[in-house]
Parts: sequence; C-alpha cells; structure tokens
Amino acid sequence: MADDSGYPEGVAYVDGDFRPLSEAKISVLDWGFLRSDATYDVVHVWDGKFFRLDRHMDRFMASVEKLRMTLPVDRDGLANILNECVSRSGMRESYVEMILTRGRSPTFSRDPRDAVNNFIAFAMPFGWVMNEEQRQRGINIVIAETRRIPVESVDPTVKNYHWLDLVAGMFESYDRGGESVVLTDLAGNITEGPGFNIFAVKDGRAATADRGVLQGITRQTATELCEELQISVDIGTVTADALRGADEIFITSTAGGIMPVTRIDGEAIRDGKPGPMTGRLTELYWAKHDDPA
Amino acid sequence: MADDSGYPEGVAYVDGDFRPLSEAKISVLDWGFLRSDATYDVVHVWDGKFFRLDRHMDRFMASVEKLRMTLPVDRDGLANILNECVSRSGMRESYVEMILTRGRSPTFSRDPRDAVNNFIAFAMPFGWVMNEEQRQRGINIVIAETRRIPVESVDPTVKNYHWLDLVAGMFESYDRGGESVVLTDLAGNITEGPGFNIFAVKDGRAATADRGVLQGITRQTATELCEELQISVDIGTVTADALRGADEIFITSTAGGIMPVTRIDGEAIRDGKPGPMTGRLTELYWAKHDDPA
Repeated sequence: MADDSGYPEGVAYVDGDFRPLSEAKISVLDWGFLRSDATYDVVHVWDGKFFRLDRHMDRFMASVEKLRMTLPVDRDGLANILNECVSRSGMRESYVEMILTRGRSPTFSRDPRDAVNNFIAFAMPFGWVMNEEQRQRGINIVIAETRRIPVESVDPTVKNYHWLDLVAGMFESYDRGGESVVLTDLAGNITEGPGFNIFAVKDGRAATADRGVLQGITRQTATELCEELQISVDIGTVTADALRGADEIFITSTAGGIMPVTRIDGEAIRDGKPGPMTGRLTELYWAKHDDPA
Repeated sequence: MADDSGYPEGVAYVDGDFRPLSEAKISVLDWGFLRSDATYDVVHVWDGKFFRLDRHMDRFMASVEKLRMTLPVDRDGLANILNECVSRSGMRESYVEMILTRGRSPTFSRDPRDAVNNFIAFAMPFGWVMNEEQRQRGINIVIAETRRIPVESVDPTVKNYHWLDLVAGMFESYDRGGESVVLTDLAGNITEGPGFNIFAVKDGRAATADRGVLQGITRQTATELCEELQISVDIGTVTADALRGADEIFITSTAGGIMPVTRIDGEAIRDGKPGPMTGRLTELYWAKHDDPA
C-alpha cells in the first residue's frame, strides 16, 4: 500500500499538476490549514467505478458556495480531474477526495475575500472505518461527554475538517475501552461519529438524527435501501436512551458503507451480535455497486 | 515584504530543517489539515526581542498536553528553534508561530494514538490585526449571529484552528458594513473575535469574558496594565447590551497589542472616538517592550 516515502500510494492534483500523493503538500500559510477554512468531499471507487459521484460533486459544490468560495474548475473539469487521479493511480479500489481551501491572500491581508482559493484532489487506497474482524462482530461505541460542534457555530451540511470534538471523543472512547465514538448535541441527543452517521433500529423501524449532522451520502443511500426493503425510517431526534435500547445499530460511511455496532458503552445491544436488518442492508448496499446506475 | 514566490519573507522549521517560508509545506494527509487536529501559539518579536516568550511557550506546551500530543523537542529545544527562525530571517519585527499537528499514522490507521506528531515553526513579518488608519480612528465591529464554538465541544484554552465560525462571522460583518466581528456564545454573551479578545469599559471599570474564549496573553497583559493604572477589571459575563452601552471598547491581540473599537453594529460608542483609557493602556503596552522583563 505504501511507496518508499512512507506515504500511501496514490495520485494527487495540487497547484494545477498531477503528482504522487507523497508529494502533495500545501503551504503552512494556507488558511485551509491556519483557519481550517476549507470544505471537502470523499467519494469511493469500487472495482474501477465511482459510486454516486454526482451526489458527492453536488454536495461539494453546494459546500463551496455556502463558504463563499470559488472553484477554479467547472463541474466537468472537476470530474475530469477526479477521473484522472484514479486512472493515473491504477487502483481499482480507492477513495477520491476533493478539497477547496480558502488559500492565501496575495496582499497578505487577513480578509478572506482577498484569498485565492486552492483546489486539491487525490486518490488514495480504499480504507475501512472498521477492519474486517470489526465488521464481522460489530464494534463497541462509546457515547462521549464531548458535544458535537453545534449548527449555530458551524454548518454541518458543509463537510468540514473541524474534528477536535470528534478526536476528543475518540480519546474518551479509548479510555473507556471503546473502539469508536458517537457525540451528542448540547441537548444530549445523538448526532454522529468520526466520519459516519448512525442508525438505531427498534421494532423494525430505523431512526437517525436529522440535525447537527452531516447529510451523509451513505446515510441517504441507507435510507433508500430501507425503503426498498420496506423498512420505515424516522429522521428526527434520536436520544441516547433510544440508542442504548435499540434492537440493532449500524453506522454509514463512504469509508465502508453500512457496518454493525454491537455494544454501546460496553453494554451489548440485544444479543451483542450484528442485527439481521444491518446484514440485509449491507448486502444490498454492496449489490448496488454492480448496478450501472 | 515578499520574495519572488508570492509568499511573505521569513524562515520556517519544517521536517527538522530550516528553509524559506515560501517552501514550508505540510502533507495534505497530515491530520493537522484533514482533521484540524493541531494546536499552536504565536509570539511577537519587536525591535529584535521576543515579547513574553515564556508565557507563549507555557500555553503552547499546556495545549500540546491537553490534546495528548508529544513535542519532539524539550522547552530549550523549542526556544532554540524559535530563536533560530528569527535570527535566520533577519527581521527585527516579526511573528513567530509554533505548531504541533497530530501528523499521520505510519500504518495508515485512523487512530490518533498511532500518529507521529509534526512540529513546525516559522517567523514571518509582523502584521497588525488593524491597519494604521483603523488604529487611529478605531474600528466598527459587528456582533454576529453565528455563535462561537462552545467549550462543551472544543476547549478554547487549547489554541486551535477551528475558525469557520469566526470566518462566517467576518462575512456577516462585511455584509453589514463592519470591519471585524465579535461572536457571542449560545446564551448570547460576548466571547471573542478572529484573533482577539475584547474589553468593554464602563464607569472606569473594564470587563472581559471569562468563558468560551482563548486565555489571550495580550488579554492577560492588558489586565495587568489595568492593575498598574488602578483600573478594576471584571472577568466574567459580558452581555451584548453591556458592549453596546460601554463608554469605550478595546481589543487585545498579539497581532497589534491593544486597539480601539469605536462602533458596534455601526452605532458610535459614546462620541465614536477611541477612549482615553484605551489610549493610556496602548501607550503603556508599547512602553513595556523596552522593559527588559
């Protein structure tokens, strides 16, 4: 997976050129770093094909607009660059990340309106948010004390790199024997985890948070798969108690699709085994990858 | 101020080497970028001398600890690198920024505990948060609708790059004819602006927020200068109404010291001129730069 540089293999588009991922760098003065003033999206490629690229590009372009930034390429140009990263990398399974940062001001002003926005893209090897053993048995997720950054501060529908709350939550989880984490909002309701949305299933109905979360594309796909399987989905408030009392729990992420959670704060969910609905959804999710649509 | 590269002059320490600031870059895979999982501090050099370097190093090392990261150098090593950046740059007035990012995991895991933390430092030309004309007349600050990221989500005493709320606030301000912005917390009380703390003066007493703000070193210096001038300082809750009804307002920042605010949401504070206490504090602040302590 790695070249000699200690970086994963892959191809990046930076400063208008394609180059090995190991050489993809940004200036430490870029406000994408110094202010985390950036948005991004990640789409996966499976068996050589993008999965729902249009949706990811739609969301990315909407995020760019909400941050009042300007992409230096149009939609076709964007798709071309992403395709080129994949084809140059030669990988059949990969993630492709597209990023727009605020960049820097050529006049060294502190005004974001003066900045020249900086577009970056790269293809890197596909990696799972859970390893194979975890996907078989389901993981133990901790509900952290740290709260997810609220919508009043940062718009979560703009996919962003403000992760210090999630990282603090990950450390809380490790300290308490967990493998990953889910954060609540300031009212104590379930939001999301590091890179995934979460669903609770009870009495045959699935539920996931409507507010304070990324409008995940795999979350949306899972909702559609539920419809296909005639499972109702409630998109609304999910309390911490509802999560603890669920019949089964799964998470959704571009980094692995639909995956089981079998413990919350160390306590088994029902029999502590991945639930049947999670299994059916996972199967259907991967079947969709062979669907030309 | 700039070399041919379009970057400001300056010297950076990156990957264990000193180099021109224009060449200071980090991998796009560094979690300091992809998760904004990083902390930093900025100290200024005036007339060739660091101003309160010890305090900045103290805060930086405390922040590193709170994020459970490890500096690859000890305190003396840190001071040496910062000094070397300054002396190599040849600049008499500069900012010196020290940064520790989470780095990347050599195993490509997603676990922050597996990461090799990445230390960066650089000296760049001193720049003011306000230009000279603004410092003479005082600026117009808008109280934004966007709320500062709360302490329940991200610890504001760990100096961090989570600025999307501040950037959104800056755009709100520009839209409403303002020059900068201050954010309130979720309860509507005043917190801080992009890179500065804010003080309201009323009936000879100064007040600034205690919670949800960076424990600014210039804020602390201003508090000490107030004591020297026998001005009481209330560190507690500052309501938006208290700010609007102040006799005078000033901000504090490493990027310029103590500076006047003369309008809030376009409305003049008293006669719309910088206040006398602000003037006295500013004078005393700069006088301290000639003090060997």
